[in-house]
Amino acid sequence: MDFPKRMEAKVITLLSDFGYKDPFVGVMKGVIFGINPDARVIDLSHGIRPQDVMAGALALRHSAPYFPPGAIHVAVVDPGVGTERRPLLIEAEDRFFIGPDNGLLSLALEGKSPRRIIEVANAAYHLKPTSATFHGRDIFAPVAAHLSLGILPTDLGPARGDFHRLPWPKLKTTGLAIQGEIIYIDGFGNLVTNIEEQALKRLCAEKLILSVGSLSIRGLAANYSSADERGYVALVNSWGLLEIALYKGHAQRSCGAKIGDKVHIQQEVANAGEAL
Amino acid sequence: MDFPKRMEAKVITLLSDFGYKDPFVGVMKGVIFGINPDARVIDLSHGIRPQDVMAGALALRHSAPYFPPGAIHVAVVDPGVGTERRPLLIEAEDRFFIGPDNGLLSLALEGKSPRRIIEVANAAYHLKPTSATFHGRDIFAPVAAHLSLGILPTDLGPARGDFHRLPWPKLKTTGLAIQGEIIYIDGFGNLVTNIEEQALKRLCAEKLILSVGSLSIRGLAANYSSADERGYVALVNSWGLLEIALYKGHAQRSCGAKIGDKVHIQQEVANAGEAL
Amino acid sequence: MDFPKRMEAKVITLLSDFGYKDPFVGVMKGVIFGINPDARVIDLSHGIRPQDVMAGALALRHSAPYFPPGAIHVAVVDPGVGTERRPLLIEAEDRFFIGPDNGLLSLALEGKSPRRIIEVANAAYHLKPTSATFHGRDIFAPVAAHLSLGILPTDLGPARGDFHRLPWPKLKTTGLAIQGEIIYIDGFGNLVTNIEEQALKRLCAEKLILSVGSLSIRGLAANYSSADERGYVALVNSWGLLEIALYKGHAQRSCGAKIGDKVHIQQEVANAGEAL
Repeated sequence: MDFPKRMEAKVITLLSDFGYKDPFVGVMKGVIFGINPDARVIDLSHGIRPQDVMAGALALRHSAPYFPPGAIHVAVVDPGVGTERRPLLIEAEDRFFIGPDNGLLSLALEGKSPRRIIEVANAAYHLKPTSATFHGRDIFAPVAAHLSLGILPTDLGPARGDFHRLPWPKLKTTGLAIQGEIIYIDGFGNLVTNIEEQALKRLCAEKLILSVGSLSIRGLAANYSSADERGYVALVNSWGLLEIALYKGHAQRSCGAKIGDKVHIQQEVANAGEAL
Repeated sequence: MDFPKRMEAKVITLLSDFGYKDPFVGVMKGVIFGINPDARVIDLSHGIRPQDVMAGALALRHSAPYFPPGAIHVAVVDPGVGTERRPLLIEAEDRFFIGPDNGLLSLALEGKSPRRIIEVANAAYHLKPTSATFHGRDIFAPVAAHLSLGILPTDLGPARGDFHRLPWPKLKTTGLAIQGEIIYIDGFGNLVTNIEEQALKRLCAEKLILSVGSLSIRGLAANYSSADERGYVALVNSWGLLEIALYKGHAQRSCGAKIGDKVHIQQEVANAGEAL
Repeated sequence: MDFPKRMEAKVITLLSDFGYKDPFVGVMKGVIFGINPDARVIDLSHGIRPQDVMAGALALRHSAPYFPPGAIHVAVVDPGVGTERRPLLIEAEDRFFIGPDNGLLSLALEGKSPRRIIEVANAAYHLKPTSATFHGRDIFAPVAAHLSLGILPTDLGPARGDFHRLPWPKLKTTGLAIQGEIIYIDGFGNLVTNIEEQALKRLCAEKLILSVGSLSIRGLAANYSSADERGYVALVNSWGLLEIALYKGHAQRSCGAKIGDKVHIQQEVANAGEAL
């Protein structure tokens, strides 16, 4: 009978550093399709820089909220594949996160109380033979597909008490001054910082001075085309984070900034030059 | 009741310059899935060069005709996002085009009489909060999803009289000579011109001399492997446009041509050398 | 009536060298959707190096087994498009392989007895007009879509006796020594050889010495993180093939190896230095 399964058909999202050259992602989809042909699979991105767990965690953090309850998010950026690092399923607020326990899932779970943390060790739901180098295909994809069919999380393996968390890089604030850093650079070359919109609330958007390396930008803009005469613009981006962009250009290539570079924000004073 | 919706399930295509590094496209699909889980989403390409509205317009022009009536084509190459440029829905010949009013939709609409031009300004169908930097996620995706559910175009915003059009670069013809230009370079490095098949009808295919920069090619071939001894070949490609290719090579890298370079076509005369 | 068609809904996989810049793959999906809106389409990869038939054949070989019976695998790496090379459908073990007869399909069919080899020449199932440069769109996609609807293979064209086969590069074995070669380099830079797991069974995994160019690796590891002090590791990868990797690095860039480079394996002897 077809209806009940359709009504429960779930969406499974995939995020990885597998790139677009090889058929690794396609194979994961084949495995899912073989188990649950009605599951909908949506790619978040497979262009995460190889082994860059933090970039994967950020991409997942800012994607998952746009999917409806019941979504199953599979993420695989997994340099420790085949070692003792645990394969996890974390359930929180009616969403499911599946991937290696290396911090990749953690930023999407900030501020949420996980309902369950399961080590998906039940080999009955793994592909056989199970390779030591491609758990995306052999563990994470089949586990997600079985979960989408209605297998209970508790059937997939034993409960665990906690999971590995990546720290969100903390801001340093001194009076009205804020020091953050570049945490992500997107495909347009936009420099994304760890400075959330609310951290800027105390400051006057027009009189804010932002600096990174030798680059200094005055004021917070509403959109990319409100750039200064050089083309640079600072704005709160669609992730709710302060971002530096070069209008119709590539800020990273142009100014040479890189992940981890410090970003300073001050309120403009009488002599803005000294404030920097 | 499930059947009626399925019968009306629509295809939504996505085209953008968002690339494959970031989860931007995946998030658009999450938004669509959350509104209409039965909508089929097909990617046209997300590898359009950043901010290259013309390349996006050409890709859309040569893709849309291969989709069935009722298709909803969302295109986002949108350097002016968050400014006063209008978000549009254009209905023509039972197809729907959704995107910014910057010319991106226009080449696909050449020669068609739009039935409706709607500014999709009705915030009831936008995501909240609506960012100023990612209308793909916050306006275009939800509008397309609601349209696929059967919301009427007229509910999505007020009718407008016209939309921004990109000019199709004109040919110059002098007798049997034609001057066109390179308008698109594909991923194989093939040089696509603005010279349509019918413009060549007056010429004899075997005796045609094509030149771009210092490169000269004699005769129009039927396929890539009918290249000359250097490997170059001129043919009418699958878009119906004259194209210069390097067999098993990359014409752009090899000959250094770029978008905008002039392409000259002449009928061979007794002394072909002088004809160039 | 909707049910019967759904029950027979087939999966169609796509593999090509079309890349991610142009809308070529999206157009193929539009053609398939227009013919069979219920077909599920899964991308294997479109990042095969342009015209690299061997890489495409390898990717297909190691992907197809992960799809359920009935799967239709379309592959297009086709420098000879528009020439007399035949467009084929090969049925074997309840799977269907569709593509040009240039060897691309052959490695996935090794050791299988094709039930049928069909030249899909029946123009009734091609798109009109049929270009000479994009058979993916005009022949392979519509043929696959019609097949997924239940059209019989024998309706698609005449039976043929054989198809073009790529040779699997043979190993040379002398006593316990094996000489293979690098046949594929994946997106992580891992060097994949033609040495299958079973060829290594006679050797002691811990005492094996592998060398490629000036690089020498001792012992076979279980996973990527079990690398030696330089970070290099040799292991049997998820394709069942011996692979050389650089942990958290890019072996190809680091050691400069390329496809075709010879790989030597020996059993370690008293003086390992001499054994090399």
